[in-house]
Amino acid sequence: MSIVIRDGLVVTATGATPTDVLVSGERVAALASPDSGLADRWATGADQVIDATGRYVIPGGVDVHTHLEMPFGGTFSSDTFETGTIAAAWGGTTTIIDFAVQPKGSSLLSALDKWHEKADGQAAVDYGFHLILSDVNDATLKEMDACVDAGVNSFKMFMAYPGVFYATDGDILRAMSRARDIGAMVMMHAENGIAIDQLVTEALAEGRTDPVHHGVTRPTELEAEATHRAIALAKVTGSPLYIVHLSASEALSAVTAARDAGQNVFAETCPQYLFLSLDDLDRPDFEGAKYVASPPLRPRSHQAELWRGLRTNDLSVVSTDHCPFCFKEQKELGRGDFSKIPNGMPGVEHRMDLLHQGVVRGEISLPRWVEITSTTPARMFGLYPRKGTIGPGSDADIVIYDPQAVQTLSVQTHHMNVDYSAYEGLQVLGRVETVVSRGEVVLDRGSFLGRTGHGRFLAREPCQYLH
Amino acid sequence: MSIVIRDGLVVTATGATPTDVLVSGERVAALASPDSGLADRWATGADQVIDATGRYVIPGGVDVHTHLEMPFGGTFSSDTFETGTIAAAWGGTTTIIDFAVQPKGSSLLSALDKWHEKADGQAAVDYGFHLILSDVNDATLKEMDACVDAGVNSFKMFMAYPGVFYATDGDILRAMSRARDIGAMVMMHAENGIAIDQLVTEALAEGRTDPVHHGVTRPTELEAEATHRAIALAKVTGSPLYIVHLSASEALSAVTAARDAGQNVFAETCPQYLFLSLDDLDRPDFEGAKYVASPPLRPRSHQAELWRGLRTNDLSVVSTDHCPFCFKEQKELGRGDFSKIPNGMPGVEHRMDLLHQGVVRGEISLPRWVEITSTTPARMFGLYPRKGTIGPGSDADIVIYDPQAVQTLSVQTHHMNVDYSAYEGLQVLGRVETVVSRGEVVLDRGSFLGRTGHGRFLAREPCQYLH
Amino acid sequence: MSIVIRDGLVVTATGATPTDVLVSGERVAALASPDSGLADRWATGADQVIDATGRYVIPGGVDVHTHLEMPFGGTFSSDTFETGTIAAAWGGTTTIIDFAVQPKGSSLLSALDKWHEKADGQAAVDYGFHLILSDVNDATLKEMDACVDAGVNSFKMFMAYPGVFYATDGDILRAMSRARDIGAMVMMHAENGIAIDQLVTEALAEGRTDPVHHGVTRPTELEAEATHRAIALAKVTGSPLYIVHLSASEALSAVTAARDAGQNVFAETCPQYLFLSLDDLDRPDFEGAKYVASPPLRPRSHQAELWRGLRTNDLSVVSTDHCPFCFKEQKELGRGDFSKIPNGMPGVEHRMDLLHQGVVRGEISLPRWVEITSTTPARMFGLYPRKGTIGPGSDADIVIYDPQAVQTLSVQTHHMNVDYSAYEGLQVLGRVETVVSRGEVVLDRGSFLGRTGHGRFLAREPCQYLH
Amino acid sequence: MSIVIRDGLVVTATGATPTDVLVSGERVAALASPDSGLADRWATGADQVIDATGRYVIPGGVDVHTHLEMPFGGTFSSDTFETGTIAAAWGGTTTIIDFAVQPKGSSLLSALDKWHEKADGQAAVDYGFHLILSDVNDATLKEMDACVDAGVNSFKMFMAYPGVFYATDGDILRAMSRARDIGAMVMMHAENGIAIDQLVTEALAEGRTDPVHHGVTRPTELEAEATHRAIALAKVTGSPLYIVHLSASEALSAVTAARDAGQNVFAETCPQYLFLSLDDLDRPDFEGAKYVASPPLRPRSHQAELWRGLRTNDLSVVSTDHCPFCFKEQKELGRGDFSKIPNGMPGVEHRMDLLHQGVVRGEISLPRWVEITSTTPARMFGLYPRKGTIGPGSDADIVIYDPQAVQTLSVQTHHMNVDYSAYEGLQVLGRVETVVSRGEVVLDRGSFLGRTGHGRFLAREPCQYLH
Repeated sequence: MSIVIRDGLVVTATGATPTDVLVSGERVAALASPDSGLADRWATGADQVIDATGRYVIPGGVDVHTHLEMPFGGTFSSDTFETGTIAAAWGGTTTIIDFAVQPKGSSLLSALDKWHEKADGQAAVDYGFHLILSDVNDATLKEMDACVDAGVNSFKMFMAYPGVFYATDGDILRAMSRARDIGAMVMMHAENGIAIDQLVTEALAEGRTDPVHHGVTRPTELEAEATHRAIALAKVTGSPLYIVHLSASEALSAVTAARDAGQNVFAETCPQYLFLSLDDLDRPDFEGAKYVASPPLRPRSHQAELWRGLRTNDLSVVSTDHCPFCFKEQKELGRGDFSKIPNGMPGVEHRMDLLHQGVVRGEISLPRWVEITSTTPARMFGLYPRKGTIGPGSDADIVIYDPQAVQTLSVQTHHMNVDYSAYEGLQVLGRVETVVSRGEVVLDRGSFLGRTGHGRFLAREPCQYLH
Repeated sequence: MSIVIRDGLVVTATGATPTDVLVSGERVAALASPDSGLADRWATGADQVIDATGRYVIPGGVDVHTHLEMPFGGTFSSDTFETGTIAAAWGGTTTIIDFAVQPKGSSLLSALDKWHEKADGQAAVDYGFHLILSDVNDATLKEMDACVDAGVNSFKMFMAYPGVFYATDGDILRAMSRARDIGAMVMMHAENGIAIDQLVTEALAEGRTDPVHHGVTRPTELEAEATHRAIALAKVTGSPLYIVHLSASEALSAVTAARDAGQNVFAETCPQYLFLSLDDLDRPDFEGAKYVASPPLRPRSHQAELWRGLRTNDLSVVSTDHCPFCFKEQKELGRGDFSKIPNGMPGVEHRMDLLHQGVVRGEISLPRWVEITSTTPARMFGLYPRKGTIGPGSDADIVIYDPQAVQTLSVQTHHMNVDYSAYEGLQVLGRVETVVSRGEVVLDRGSFLGRTGHGRFLAREPCQYLH
Repeated sequence: MSIVIRDGLVVTATGATPTDVLVSGERVAALASPDSGLADRWATGADQVIDATGRYVIPGGVDVHTHLEMPFGGTFSSDTFETGTIAAAWGGTTTIIDFAVQPKGSSLLSALDKWHEKADGQAAVDYGFHLILSDVNDATLKEMDACVDAGVNSFKMFMAYPGVFYATDGDILRAMSRARDIGAMVMMHAENGIAIDQLVTEALAEGRTDPVHHGVTRPTELEAEATHRAIALAKVTGSPLYIVHLSASEALSAVTAARDAGQNVFAETCPQYLFLSLDDLDRPDFEGAKYVASPPLRPRSHQAELWRGLRTNDLSVVSTDHCPFCFKEQKELGRGDFSKIPNGMPGVEHRMDLLHQGVVRGEISLPRWVEITSTTPARMFGLYPRKGTIGPGSDADIVIYDPQAVQTLSVQTHHMNVDYSAYEGLQVLGRVETVVSRGEVVLDRGSFLGRTGHGRFLAREPCQYLH
Repeated sequence: MSIVIRDGLVVTATGATPTDVLVSGERVAALASPDSGLADRWATGADQVIDATGRYVIPGGVDVHTHLEMPFGGTFSSDTFETGTIAAAWGGTTTIIDFAVQPKGSSLLSALDKWHEKADGQAAVDYGFHLILSDVNDATLKEMDACVDAGVNSFKMFMAYPGVFYATDGDILRAMSRARDIGAMVMMHAENGIAIDQLVTEALAEGRTDPVHHGVTRPTELEAEATHRAIALAKVTGSPLYIVHLSASEALSAVTAARDAGQNVFAETCPQYLFLSLDDLDRPDFEGAKYVASPPLRPRSHQAELWRGLRTNDLSVVSTDHCPFCFKEQKELGRGDFSKIPNGMPGVEHRMDLLHQGVVRGEISLPRWVEITSTTPARMFGLYPRKGTIGPGSDADIVIYDPQAVQTLSVQTHHMNVDYSAYEGLQVLGRVETVVSRGEVVLDRGSFLGRTGHGRFLAREPCQYLH
């Protein structure tokens, strides 16, 4: 099976050039200059020739933060590996890294097994796993090695959610030391959950129960504080640190300071923090519940600073933190008590399109769009050059993107298994036209051509940014 | 004429992959995966097949800061376009950008003409020009447009050297405003020359005449001050700014702060600031004169901070500020008065090798080596993707680098036209094996095969990092 | 001659206590606790007993920045030593330090002589001098010693006003080095005048001639830049530095950073920057001209930061920069060209009252009011404990202040020799009731009882804050 | 009973002036200028006349951080209110504020009662109390009001010592909110005890049991982290914060940043952090145990930064954290396990002398010495002007200090009830000659003339620095 993609503008992390691409089997076999005449020769024997004139040809998106079928407060996030990865493909994302959850008291490897079961034969695009480390003890610390050997070398911890995922600073120190020794990475949900719980208790006691109080009780200072603390603990242990879903400018300042000091500290943000705000959380009639995620949406004024961070690489990655819960029956669990609203928002399908608006608006350059949505995530989590670029030998994960198409985001048209869109009615410029995943055309001009089971597990190498 | 380079490890700014390269004419025609079998087919009809097994295949170096045949204090820097570009080729640098000098009172375009004359038919590798703007007035501001049209869109100004190149803050404001309007860049030599001259006067009056006092009278605070001031003026005008040859950690802090604030401020450093120090300037018997350049070499403690800056991209580029003066008759002009020592050091030949030691020592990663010596300089000064990468359609400027070779730097073996080496006796790991410039093998295993006149002038596009 | 002031609340820099004060001759002889009964005994033989019940008893104000009869652009500031010091007394200020001006080319000592002539026999309250250093050369540097011996140990330089007072960075370095060696202080007008002149030229060329453009062409960045530069030069020389009339939050940040780093850097602000804003400069019908001073009034948002600085001591002093020019005939010189408007505003009479509003509004504490208007200025400029406090042996410069009185500031009622009030119609809480200057009641309940010639020249000791 | 102290140099927070002092009963009745002749008159009827020629006359020291008879790990600190306050008097300290300890599960008021019992009739100088808040719950939060009414308005919390005094961030938030509402102050022991415990566990597991590991397991980053976190929590609640015993430059940076931002954050350091270092903790033969306190002694390089903080008021107070444990039987509890060494060092007797060395060495000025050891502590904790100054109406707590006397600190000569001196053999310049406490001479030229029971409890007003 071979495909020739010709006359498109190949965009990578460093620039954009008219280039023809030869896909052979699952991989990119070659790139050629259009004026070399090679594409003509290749086209002769090719199974398929795609004319990409006027289109961007970009490496498939890499979304390093999803929660599929994730248990949360007695329910599950509403996308399965099937629906979630199909939605990803629709949105031009050909790799996801999902979080396997270690429930308190169980083993890491059994958590991995469980996630493999969920994904096996179900995924439409490739996937890897991170592990959520709920228990830190001698046994789990030992298991971390086996996880690394099994291709999972990133471990998420929570400074939030006391009683659920919450790790003490002592736990964090231990896990970081271990990660440092075995070449793994600690990922951190950085919010001071102990302090937040106190504010939540006070709010509820005062009858402030609407969704907006989810935001009010999680002030930016407490994200900044936890971010600063995680950085301090990483410094004490000499381990790298990756801050997930950074939302507040004060937290970004803490990351910036650490990076300026040369520490191995990295951070991602998510589209919802770039395009939505506390105002959405304050929508009437419990509509705000659709926007409940942690950290919460922030005042609009934070967005400029996040874009700045994306430009200057203090924010290196944009992921989605995709964790959908339906409004009916799921979000509604929190009517009358915002603290019972399942935390999470859908988004895996819209990341590439939303960030493309950053290009349209001049916030980021075209190569930077590819870098933060594909190349850097792949390098950060040990998938490059297999993923994250279009180069000889790379997996043929390729998106043909029409930068001039206009589309309107809506629950009516999206493919995520959730009954609302956080971006309902938003008109965006640009649309995925064709998606190739490991050499197969899985999506083309509005038709999903892929299949569950096509997606394979990706064992990952170490982060490529450590020094 | 076609060349196939096979079985090497192609290194770009984002990673390293085994890749075969097809050069056709002056350009890269195609890249192929070794297991695609394409290289075999290409080799059949090729004029030359190079086996790069065990070698890095990297884009040719781009040195954006050289001074060839530059008049300074009554003498000229000792490398011509012929000797300088040949030395560059020996060192794996296939593009230089040299500074055309506008003498006070003359026109910018005539300066360009003069530099074209110097270079025309003389260069062994490709070259572009920046302009040194000595006079800011209505006429020269108007000429800046014509320069941009002529492919020269970067204008260097000096906060040092009163009476020679010194520009007042008013001049700088005017030039920056113009640059902003026409998409050009101001490059800045950031040292407070007015204050320095006062310190020099005091030193000489006190009989402190040795070369080390060149360093003592140019304290780091006065580089940091000027850097901060240039940034402030850029902020007032809304123009981009590129700080040349940054040497001091305090100046780096000013750049870091500006970048953290989202300003379009960029900076380069040079190998001499990474590998040499104030101790060299203090060598006895006037040997220190060999190390006189401005800004001066700094205490060794600054080096760690500069490497940090290179890792975090607060320093984006490494250039050489190649400006050689022979010890005999040139440097000796300053015996008994350090202020009369011609300012400048040779270096165009050693940049790639010296920075490779950063890889060897773990200061920077392999892709970062390519990024700071080739890719970013090309993007910064509007040459990408023609230069700065190995990709279909790019100029075939390719270096085959043996990372295991051992060499010793010395005046005995170098090719720069200068009677000393600043790195005499330094043993380094790695060596350029073969150099391809625009499709021609100009150097191979110790034989220079190129010719003057091969190198062509490069009209440049705008900086690709502005937002 | 003896006076007993009893039953008032004596306020000093550290607190407020009910205390009786015995003045004997020109000095404070003793303080006693009201319940000691001593005041009864004292009252028996006293020439005058003042009942200060319900009043603050504070040390007379010390205004370290006035310009009386100052030549500026062909005219003179409109207050003489007679009218200016009488106005000061009305406002509770019993000490001023005025700036003697060295015209280019003349000697420092002759400038001092000239100022002594102006003041001699004319002043109603005590006064000292700073010197404005216009020329830095071997002769003037030598004269600095003689000035110190003559009781004038603070030398003001200008980074603004090219062609008038402007000092180059080299001049500044020289003067700072000298000041360091002789225990003197350099005071700095920190605005980048070279850059500002360029902006002014551009504004006028574009027909932007209204007073508000005085502000627009002096952006805060250029005050911050100059402040940063002055600090750098002070660091290079190891000399102390006092920034006059700081107006912008960015400049304050530079001072704060230097102080955090332990440098001997101090700064003052003025009431106009705390109570007026760029909006005043933008008043229609050329009314803005009344508010032209340099640095210019700033956007209102800077005020909170200045109050913060006053609380945290990054701003240690409030002076007036009193430099009045009448609207008619003086300010009007700049109709149609803002650059010709004489720079300066009246204010010596209102400083104590305006700052008292800071107490009323909770911006500063009562002791801090006394500290920044009297105690610190006296300590900063070597007058303490003679001035700046009410203590045994101190000069009996005492103000009895009624904190509950209400007054309205107006040209109708003020005593400065200028035809407008910058605070016309402003109602303030608090008023000076009685003023004692060196043991004489010079003002009492609305009657001026003093006389020209009472005020004496104050030879000053070194700054008391250096380390 | 009246005393006249004449011909001394009275030093206050703002300066030094020759002044005669009349003490009448327990208070200062009056101050007079020596040349007023009043002292002669006063001396006639006085009970005692003290000639202070050549001496400093300073307000008695105020030590706001002592632990007398404090239970710790099964033992008690070795000074009682009797021995501790007598030692304080010997050292020129006439006021202490001791920490009453609320044991977990008991009430605040009962803790206060217990401390009153300990102190009642035992103290040789005046004293106040802070409360250590071990339990935060509805009951104790309510009791805080009663404590304020009882003259105790400062509540110390611990981010260290899990299982003993440790408060969660939620507890801290609650207590801070309460403190804010009732005009009280939260004092914080800022070390991340959770992380430290992990490091301690690791050290002991690895056999690192010597006293120096007490320091190694409490790295400066974890003090800085906790300091930063406490500041963040104070910001969230809008409450003031006082950081006790700050020891590390990184923690000082956090305080400096908060103060620069205008937050009501204050900090003290202690003499041991200014004069001793980690080297002392590393003394052989378990001698290091004498220097075990928390935070631990730091590398010597931190001292310069602490002195800087004292000069710039980022450190406002010097207290002792006096908490003596004998080497025999107490410190020895930790042989073979540093974590069992009682935490604390003696020091109440030496604070004034040690800080006077700062004056001698030029680190601080003479008025600043008085300010940080007496005036500011009194203002900070609501005792001014009763304590902290020599003024009419103030308590007659006066120290006559001979700045030229030479003494050698030693367990042989000190008066604290502890079997070692942390400063054994240290020669210092200056010595307390006479101490007056509330009008009584309690110490004179080497004879203790005071008595237990003279010292009285001080009900305190709110902090005088809040805005």
